[in-house]
Amino acid sequence: MTLNPTCVAISGGVGGAKLALGLSHVLSPPDLAIVANTGDDFEHLGLAICPDLDTVMYTLADLSNKELGWGQEGESWAFLAALERLKGETWFRLGDRDLATHVLRSEMLRRGGTLSDATTFLCQALGIRHALIPMSDDAVPTLVRTGNGTRLAFQHYFVRDRCSPVVKGFEFEGVETARPSPGFRNVLGAGRLSSIVICPSNPFVSVDPVLAIPGVMDAINRASAPLIAVSPIVGGAAIKGPAAKMMKELGMPQTALAVARHYVGRVDGFVLDLVDKDYAFEVEALGMQVLVTNTMMRSLDDRIALARDVLGFAERIQRKVT
Amino acid sequence: MTLNPTCVAISGGVGGAKLALGLSHVLSPPDLAIVANTGDDFEHLGLAICPDLDTVMYTLADLSNKELGWGQEGESWAFLAALERLKGETWFRLGDRDLATHVLRSEMLRRGGTLSDATTFLCQALGIRHALIPMSDDAVPTLVRTGNGTRLAFQHYFVRDRCSPVVKGFEFEGVETARPSPGFRNVLGAGRLSSIVICPSNPFVSVDPVLAIPGVMDAINRASAPLIAVSPIVGGAAIKGPAAKMMKELGMPQTALAVARHYVGRVDGFVLDLVDKDYAFEVEALGMQVLVTNTMMRSLDDRIALARDVLGFAERIQRKVT
Repeated sequence: MTLNPTCVAISGGVGGAKLALGLSHVLSPPDLAIVANTGDDFEHLGLAICPDLDTVMYTLADLSNKELGWGQEGESWAFLAALERLKGETWFRLGDRDLATHVLRSEMLRRGGTLSDATTFLCQALGIRHALIPMSDDAVPTLVRTGNGTRLAFQHYFVRDRCSPVVKGFEFEGVETARPSPGFRNVLGAGRLSSIVICPSNPFVSVDPVLAIPGVMDAINRASAPLIAVSPIVGGAAIKGPAAKMMKELGMPQTALAVARHYVGRVDGFVLDLVDKDYAFEVEALGMQVLVTNTMMRSLDDRIALARDVLGFAERIQRKVT
Repeated sequence: MTLNPTCVAISGGVGGAKLALGLSHVLSPPDLAIVANTGDDFEHLGLAICPDLDTVMYTLADLSNKELGWGQEGESWAFLAALERLKGETWFRLGDRDLATHVLRSEMLRRGGTLSDATTFLCQALGIRHALIPMSDDAVPTLVRTGNGTRLAFQHYFVRDRCSPVVKGFEFEGVETARPSPGFRNVLGAGRLSSIVICPSNPFVSVDPVLAIPGVMDAINRASAPLIAVSPIVGGAAIKGPAAKMMKELGMPQTALAVARHYVGRVDGFVLDLVDKDYAFEVEALGMQVLVTNTMMRSLDDRIALARDVLGFAERIQRKVT
């Protein structure tokens, strides 16, 4: 199936999924394609686990666990309790319902299907009508370089070690030979494309892996649509996750401005929260157009409002980068 | 670890596991080794599933679901419900707790461990002190030849199709090149061995696969201990499972005597239930010694009493076969 959306949204997990959901309420299925980071994918207990992809999928299916920020709502943990009794690894909390996703996907991959195929199948089964596309069908595992010189698999850093190691940098293993998924290539070349939106996700471990895949930035630069990033840092803190802690450890100010600097030369428009409006001038000086609006998505209405704001912003700005 | 038991019990699922449990109450861990059929093993959703082996394991761990006759007690089904929503195959009912066993075992096998290794690990985690040994570390899948000429994988016949196809025969795929597991070879050569007990399991699909592995009957015949079979058919009916239906479809009388005939030339002693005492003379005429006792194991006391009866019987009889 060839997709021809007007908007491509690039998303990591929870924060990004909120805006992706907002966009899905504003744009009809043919008009929106959501591309999820798969750099945080890993194999665990022999299962292919895709945390960001699944967070977006469960969010779009209205199945996401809003309290936990991952997994499914109303989840139960009998598998994990039994696994613990069997002395299996339980640091990554696999819920009973969530497990069905991983078991089925793993089986599809073992039978030769791609992650894109498996994602399409799962989304259809869950009644998701908008296109959800993994960034790549190739494994591009994010490694976290830590202060003591080790390289940690991302989920070991993020879940097992609860982000406590000091971050020195990141590697996207195998990215040199990875290709964007067919769907991702397809939508970046869509004739009707009028916006590419980087949802408010972690710049280092959710967005950079997507943009680092060879050919992705080239395709974005060739597209007529502007690339717009929504800051995941608001008022000097990350809404969710370790972005601010990472920035500190990487020697960066923990500000929306620093996020904009991180994207300089890549992004055409930058969306600042109202509390960060004083950075607008400095962000514009980086060569980006700026939208200042409420980016705190507490309710579905907030998500929808931000989606509308971002799409309106895209209509108004012209590409400057390239 | 070299085992040197006085008794080796050969078991299929539920019925066999009852006597195996009785034996485990009578014999200390060094004195008993239980060998489980793995001919009914299959891969499902990418998971290595061993129904008979697990039934024995859960029975020994006092975790078995007595109502269902398979799986764990107090089981929940959230995984299966989620799998159904995802349009996965749900005919084989994998419980949330049970799933931990399959996921962990599958991962051990993928990492190069043997089924014996995985079984030992799982049994230790569950606090099982008696040795539980798979018949083989090689796959020997039982196929059911049916009336319409097809060959069905055993669990497809047994669970998916609920034993409804007419049985014409059985094949143990790959048995020619299969080897008994190291533990099985070990215990059949144990110096102290004084009994080998075929628990009341299905002769065709639980016991024959074990005895068909090259070298097993030879080792049994070389052992000083008698081979004793407990009839799974009592009063013309199977206590559990499709044994009687299979006998009918194979053109055999549905009697304990027909089971004894099936084992002729292989078995030294045959245990008949009290209701089948009139067959004693005919079974003896087949060259077997006979014990008539209560074989209906309704309570744990029944299981223990039958275990004691069978072990006493073994002491009294001499090998005639060979």
